Amino acid sequence: MFEQLGLVGCGLMGGSFALALKRAGLVRDVVGFSPSASTRDRALAMGVVDAVAATAADAARGSDLVLVAVPVAATQTTLTAIAGVLSATALVMDVGSTKTDVVAAAERALGQAISCFVPAHPIAGKEVAGVAHADPALYTHCQVILTPTAATGATQLAQADALWRALGCRVRHMSAPAHDAALAAVSHLPHLLAFAMMNAIAAQPEGADFLSVAGPGFRDFTRIAASDPAVWRDVLLANAAKVLSQIARFRTSLDVLEHAISHGDAAGVESLIRQASDARASWSLGAPPTTK
Amino acid sequence: MFEQLGLVGCGLMGGSFALALKRAGLVRDVVGFSPSASTRDRALAMGVVDAVAATAADAARGSDLVLVAVPVAATQTTLTAIAGVLSATALVMDVGSTKTDVVAAAERALGQAISCFVPAHPIAGKEVAGVAHADPALYTHCQVILTPTAATGATQLAQADALWRALGCRVRHMSAPAHDAALAAVSHLPHLLAFAMMNAIAAQPEGADFLSVAGPGFRDFTRIAASDPAVWRDVLLANAAKVLSQIARFRTSLDVLEHAISHGDAAGVESLIRQASDARASWSLGAPPTTK
Repeated sequence: MFEQLGLVGCGLMGGSFALALKRAGLVRDVVGFSPSASTRDRALAMGVVDAVAATAADAARGSDLVLVAVPVAATQTTLTAIAGVLSATALVMDVGSTKTDVVAAAERALGQAISCFVPAHPIAGKEVAGVAHADPALYTHCQVILTPTAATGATQLAQADALWRALGCRVRHMSAPAHDAALAAVSHLPHLLAFAMMNAIAAQPEGADFLSVAGPGFRDFTRIAASDPAVWRDVLLANAAKVLSQIARFRTSLDVLEHAISHGDAAGVESLIRQASDARASWSLGAPPTTK
Repeated sequence: MFEQLGLVGCGLMGGSFALALKRAGLVRDVVGFSPSASTRDRALAMGVVDAVAATAADAARGSDLVLVAVPVAATQTTLTAIAGVLSATALVMDVGSTKTDVVAAAERALGQAISCFVPAHPIAGKEVAGVAHADPALYTHCQVILTPTAATGATQLAQADALWRALGCRVRHMSAPAHDAALAAVSHLPHLLAFAMMNAIAAQPEGADFLSVAGPGFRDFTRIAASDPAVWRDVLLANAAKVLSQIARFRTSLDVLEHAISHGDAAGVESLIRQASDARASWSLGAPPTTK
């Protein structure tokens, strides 16, 4: 049980975290800061926060738990703003989709308070943004990756583990670079492909008419294309090297399939689809790594 | 109300059609043929068919409604097999995801019986194949594209319209080439990208570990990657020219996004994501074409 959550960033991710903690009875008070006045008002009206703060530091001051839920490129500025007011025993986490840049930002920003910080990535989300969509069940059953460093406090790490587990999440520890390599492949790449495909279709004169016959397969494939532009701008740039490497691997795979199609190689096309189909059919959400 | 449905191909699509017609009280008897003995047995045991036929012709003989639900490359052989036994007033449809090749196959195979044939594509499906997954609700609320030609009988076309509407579908008429151009963009391309991405990830030494942290975005994006290899081999090859054209357009769109990422162009990356996000957010399943 935490006395006070200082919520810095009251959007979908931050707002859902506050609601989840309240529902689970894990926090007494939530003090929230958002740079947007309308978000602050909405968060208060929805009961996501109990009080609004004028600055990020005001939200963090006196809080034994601080969640920084901002686009990842804003992490360093945000942590710098709160570094001076953190108590030595506070637990501070983020929810960013990249971790190497977040760890580096925390090391630059937090000074001695670095021991308070547990880099966290709950692998959950929605194709809509903003506090209006905050949902206390957003994190239920999701996987949370923590990427502690040598400077991370053992107490804070244990608290972070317990907190996410209490919300119904599975918790896994990885290094920040290992996290970013994995997420580049299974999250950043599919987002980027969905963005590129939507733009490719919309750029055609017949695009609107084409879209009118799109069915449930298209709906599910492109759901992530509706993601928040500021959040995903930061993710793709923060993890650019690994994302570009995954694009290169994808292009090679696309080349092979395209070559088989353009040469009318029925056995080759079927074999490539079967590989993909078998790989997807044997995958399930949240399953541990399989050995081959 | 039809007296007898001759079902040629008792997989997911055909089996679901039979169950839907039975549930709606639109057919008295279903006689089914599958080249697979285990499929025939299963279809009979599940009540998908009331009787099994030894050949496609035996299923079609005496049927006032015939559904050909086979991989599209098998269409011509199948129609040739049944052409001689069709009554002049029968309604014959397929459910293939490509239409230009199906129309050409029908013209070659059916002779005078071409007036019986209404090329149909119900835009529905599942990421699993086979009669075991047949579902009477598969087509409910889906869009069905009919691509009649000058040779299509007016009576049969009206019957086809009424039949699909009675199953709860929205029906639209298009030319076969217009259908294939649209589906190349909004269905064949996303399937192909999902296949290529699954293969690209699985080909990496860390692939299995990467997949273990994949979340709900990945799950939805790759759902169609688990589609039936034989069905999709035929679709991609039958519509190869239009599919290759969509791949080229996609590559251009990917190039633009990749260039912005590799040059750290934050405004450019955000603008490209915003285009995609706005396009996806303004789309909804089954909505009519929007004018810009």
